[in-house]
Amino acid sequence: MTKDPQPTAGVVVIGDEVLSGKVEEKNAVFMIRRFRVLGIRLARVVIVPDAMEDIGEVVRHASETYDLVCTTGGVGPTHDDITIEAIARAFEVPVVSHPKLEALVREYFGEEATAAQLRLALVPEGTVLDGEDSPPWPTAHFRNIHIFPGIPRLMASKFDAIAHTFGGAPMYAGSLEIAAAEWEICDALDGVVQSHPHVSIGSYPRREQGSWRVRVTVDATGREDAEAAFSALERALSSHLTSTDPVAVVS
Amino acid sequence: MTKDPQPTAGVVVIGDEVLSGKVEEKNAVFMIRRFRVLGIRLARVVIVPDAMEDIGEVVRHASETYDLVCTTGGVGPTHDDITIEAIARAFEVPVVSHPKLEALVREYFGEEATAAQLRLALVPEGTVLDGEDSPPWPTAHFRNIHIFPGIPRLMASKFDAIAHTFGGAPMYAGSLEIAAAEWEICDALDGVVQSHPHVSIGSYPRREQGSWRVRVTVDATGREDAEAAFSALERALSSHLTSTDPVAVVS
Repeated sequence: MTKDPQPTAGVVVIGDEVLSGKVEEKNAVFMIRRFRVLGIRLARVVIVPDAMEDIGEVVRHASETYDLVCTTGGVGPTHDDITIEAIARAFEVPVVSHPKLEALVREYFGEEATAAQLRLALVPEGTVLDGEDSPPWPTAHFRNIHIFPGIPRLMASKFDAIAHTFGGAPMYAGSLEIAAAEWEICDALDGVVQSHPHVSIGSYPRREQGSWRVRVTVDATGREDAEAAFSALERALSSHLTSTDPVAVVS
Repeated sequence: MTKDPQPTAGVVVIGDEVLSGKVEEKNAVFMIRRFRVLGIRLARVVIVPDAMEDIGEVVRHASETYDLVCTTGGVGPTHDDITIEAIARAFEVPVVSHPKLEALVREYFGEEATAAQLRLALVPEGTVLDGEDSPPWPTAHFRNIHIFPGIPRLMASKFDAIAHTFGGAPMYAGSLEIAAAEWEICDALDGVVQSHPHVSIGSYPRREQGSWRVRVTVDATGREDAEAAFSALERALSSHLTSTDPVAVVS
């Protein structure tokens, strides 16, 4: 793992439909890409069912462990949408109607808003709103938890509306393609890993037309750290090297 | 949640490369589909980095909570492959070389097998081997944990070689397409949910050309339970119904 100044994030995906394979998971996939570019170290992704205790336990653990948490799903008006109540219970606060959110929900649905629609204004007490301009209304932000809807397009637009508030440190990354099996390069790799403690070095084997290939990657928040490790790997693995993707800022 | 006789499963995906977005996650996606057809209720998916404590904590929790656990990744010969050691530490057993696995590893690499290659025969003490015929060697099975490699093609073939040992109860599922917003069908839906406690009923909204649509799904291990809930939903939602996918065994 990199020891670096990047903030850490946890993602909690809520929904029976994802675990049961009825709906393809897209929100974690989206956030993984975004966090990389934002320079935030995603430290855990958990997919849980629509179950009160699971949601509460996992969100609370993530909130206490990582700098920021994003949840997706379980915030609609139906019986299986229990994210708000689960988070409120986990932190022992009541569920309340947020006055501004309620006003926006009433504006959106008109004065004949039903009880089911008004559930969309419920939040754990202490929630603030982020992303005033993101349609159809801002995103609930309780402690360090950002509570997103599960519909991928809506989730993505809301995430992008507030992602600038998350902080983040740019990341520098490069990679080397190696024509060898992983076990042939272990010793060389270990030497570079030991001597570059601030760089995250990964090795990812695959088989191509009957031969082993390995992609070796470097990641660091310091450009010089990343470049030094990259050069050391070029030297240590020179006899198997087929191509390189030099260090550059991740974007 | 369905209260039913399906075994429960937890999946732990291990690897910085997935969380950092360098490699697309494919193993959980694969297992989600397989568990659905096998009739096993996948209850949690967790993606963790290559970090000793994270792996140990999450795998141990899953092992104690679900009937079976599948891990993928972190079992190669390099510095970031620490799954075996993490699991052994979490259960306070030593890491040992499995005699049969070691023989197979030596057979595969030849008598000049290196120390790095022989790491592939290391397991937590108490491990048995499943899937004698799955190449290149069987899969480590420690307590209720199946330890798979992270390379997707290899993972998939090893999973399929032993999946028949997992148990599972066939699942019956159907769905209804509704031309309405979720809040318009809440009350009707809630009524059916209350009166069919053994059926899992889901509702999944989406927006299509400016209009809301909802897919309502039923899932149960009993065909009659699923069919009764499906019929009740057809009646309760008849004014918005656009099409149906009748109850059938999931395959």
